[in-house]
Amino acid sequence: MDRLEQQIKFIIEIDKLKNIIRRNYLADGSRREDDADHSWHLALMCAILAEYANEKIDILRTMTMLLVHDLVEIDAGDTYAYDTTGADLSKRERELAAADRIFNLLPEDQAAYLRGLWDEFEENETPEAKFASALDRLQPFLLNSASDGKSWKEHGVTFSQVLKRNRETPEGSKVLGDYQYKLLKQEGEK
Amino acid sequence: MDRLEQQIKFIIEIDKLKNIIRRNYLADGSRREDDADHSWHLALMCAILAEYANEKIDILRTMTMLLVHDLVEIDAGDTYAYDTTGADLSKRERELAAADRIFNLLPEDQAAYLRGLWDEFEENETPEAKFASALDRLQPFLLNSASDGKSWKEHGVTFSQVLKRNRETPEGSKVLGDYQYKLLKQEGEK
Repeated sequence: MDRLEQQIKFIIEIDKLKNIIRRNYLADGSRREDDADHSWHLALMCAILAEYANEKIDILRTMTMLLVHDLVEIDAGDTYAYDTTGADLSKRERELAAADRIFNLLPEDQAAYLRGLWDEFEENETPEAKFASALDRLQPFLLNSASDGKSWKEHGVTFSQVLKRNRETPEGSKVLGDYQYKLLKQEGEK
Repeated sequence: MDRLEQQIKFIIEIDKLKNIIRRNYLADGSRREDDADHSWHLALMCAILAEYANEKIDILRTMTMLLVHDLVEIDAGDTYAYDTTGADLSKRERELAAADRIFNLLPEDQAAYLRGLWDEFEENETPEAKFASALDRLQPFLLNSASDGKSWKEHGVTFSQVLKRNRETPEGSKVLGDYQYKLLKQEGEK
């Protein structure tokens, strides 16, 4: 198949990310956000907050990683961060199969590049991946905080669960980790 | 105000972009997409299709431009591409006022950077802006085409209107312009 045709096929396929609905609400509490909304927000947060990464990061690389980090959910679905049953081995298997299918719609060089970014995000070892992961935790936290903990309340998520979930933020950004901890303490005291 | 507090305030404010609903439908025709969905799609299209820009572009700059290009619609609303009444002088005034308010939530250096990108997009003169604009036309075209012209039909948009609207795509990318024209001719012959 023609290179451009492959690229367009991928572009149409990933439109389905807009149909994957997350648990957390928009800041105004009006509706739950979709994965594309979430990914857009993270990419722009990356442009704005990159100065707080613990180590200097490649912004384009991190931004692109964030734009593709949830694509596997088109096949594998969204697993709620506080859901202990869904986050099992089968989740990892479903996501790997999804990555094989979706990224391989692209021409080989681009499939390898974007799949590499997704693997890097999952392995969470480079400064870029750690910072991307910190943003991926901070963003729903900010929206939950802005909407008075709406999705936490709905799912009976406790203060200590939120604390535990966000314990890794400082690995990508000490500054954002401190900020988040301060905000969380304020929430806990409400 | 503390720099980080200003940045977080901006990040919460732009969450409203998810509430701005566009006219065009998702590829599966199930619902109309929101501005954040659209901006996510464009940024990722930029990563994939940059090789077809007429002139070499700075990908990070173009991607960031696409992530912010619709932020003014938080205040000014979405104007349908085929709406001739809304696209008047007042639209431009409303968008300028919105840009003044929204970008200035950020610290001065970042406000200037992102506002500069928005101005550049609007002026449509640099290779980056022209390519971003080409993608901004191609994306709804692809979704409309995938959903059998659902939003064109709803709004009585004619073949010649679509042709006219997309006449500028080749200014950013001849390859994408040719592709779009080919697809449009096929649609017209249906």
